[in-house]
Amino acid sequence: MKIKAFTKGDSTRRQLIEVGARLFHQQGYHNTGLQQILKQAALTKGSFYFHFKDKESFALAIIEQQICMFKENLNQHLGNEKFNAEQKITAFHQFFLEIFTRNQFKGGCPIGNFSQEMADVSGLFADKIKHAFNGMTRCFKLVIDQGQQQGHFKAELNSLDTANFVVNSWEGAVLRMKASQNAEPLENWYQFVRLLLIN
Amino acid sequence: MKIKAFTKGDSTRRQLIEVGARLFHQQGYHNTGLQQILKQAALTKGSFYFHFKDKESFALAIIEQQICMFKENLNQHLGNEKFNAEQKITAFHQFFLEIFTRNQFKGGCPIGNFSQEMADVSGLFADKIKHAFNGMTRCFKLVIDQGQQQGHFKAELNSLDTANFVVNSWEGAVLRMKASQNAEPLENWYQFVRLLLIN
Repeated sequence: MKIKAFTKGDSTRRQLIEVGARLFHQQGYHNTGLQQILKQAALTKGSFYFHFKDKESFALAIIEQQICMFKENLNQHLGNEKFNAEQKITAFHQFFLEIFTRNQFKGGCPIGNFSQEMADVSGLFADKIKHAFNGMTRCFKLVIDQGQQQGHFKAELNSLDTANFVVNSWEGAVLRMKASQNAEPLENWYQFVRLLLIN
Repeated sequence: MKIKAFTKGDSTRRQLIEVGARLFHQQGYHNTGLQQILKQAALTKGSFYFHFKDKESFALAIIEQQICMFKENLNQHLGNEKFNAEQKITAFHQFFLEIFTRNQFKGGCPIGNFSQEMADVSGLFADKIKHAFNGMTRCFKLVIDQGQQQGHFKAELNSLDTANFVVNSWEGAVLRMKASQNAEPLENWYQFVRLLLIN
C-alpha cells in the first residue's frame, strides 16, 4: 500500500512539473497562474500543496529538472566521443536548431527565460541559473580544450573565456530568434563561432 | 485653458510611462499590476484609461519610448563622429557597463527583457522588438563598415552578418550578467568583439 501511494504521488508530482514546465516555457512564470496549471493537469489544489510549498518552490523544482534535461542534451552532443571537437559543436547546433524549428522559434531557452524573468526577483533562482550557465560553460570548455589539443581550434584562445563567450552569444541568438521568428540568429551564431574557433 | 489641459494630460501620460517603464524593467511585465503602477504614480484608474486602452497598449507605448531612448544612446556612442570605429565600440561598451554597474547588474536590457517575456505572447510586441534589434544592428553595421574602410577592422567580414552577431552576443552577455550579477559577461563580450573585428 505504502509503495503504491508513493508511486501515485510521484506521478502526480511529475505531471505537475510537466504541465508547469510547458506553461512557464510558453507563457513565462508570472504570466502563468496556479489555476491554469491545475486545470491542464486535471489535479486539485490539495495535490499541488502536498508536493510544493508555493509557486516559487514549484518553479525551482521545474528549473532543476530542466537543468538535468539540458545537461543530458549537452552530454549527448558536446560530450559525444564519436565526434571530434568541431563535430560536437555542429551536433549541438543542429540538435537545438531542429527543436526550435519544430517549436516555430517560440519558447526559446527555458534557462535563459528564467534568467531574464527571475534572476532579479529571487536570489534562489539567480543561484540555480548561474550554476546552469556555469555547467554549460564547462561543457564547451572541454570541447574547446579538445579542439585545441587536436590542433583544429586556435591555440591562442583562453578556453574558459571563449566557452563563456560561446555560451552567452548562443543565449543571445536564442533571444533574438524569439523576435525574428526564424533560424537566422542560430545560423549566424554557428557561422561566427566556427570563425572564432577553427584554425 | 485648452493648452493648459493638454499640458496636464501630457505630463500624466509621461508620468505613467516613467513609472511603468521602471516597474516593468525591475519586475517584468506580467509581474507588475496596474494597481502598483497607479499607486506609485499617485494617479487614478480613470487617468490611466484616459491615456491607454489597456495594459498591453500601455506597454507598447513604453517600449516605443525605450526604443527612442536606446536609439539616442546608440547615436551618442556608435554615431559619435569624434571617434573612430574602434573608439565607438569602446564608448558603447563603457556607457552601458557604467549604467549596469550603477544598477548593480539588475534589470538588464529593457528591449531584451520584452523580447524574452513578450515576443511569443503578442505579435505586436514581436514586431516592435524585431525592429528595435534591426535598428541596433544597422548602427553597428555602419561602425563596422567605417572600421573596414579605415583599414582597422577585418575586411573579409560581412558587415551585416557581423553586426547581427555583435548585437545578439551583447544581448546574451546582458542576460548572463543578470545571473552572474557582475560585469564579467560584458567585459568578456568586449574582449571577443575586439578579437573578432580588429585587424
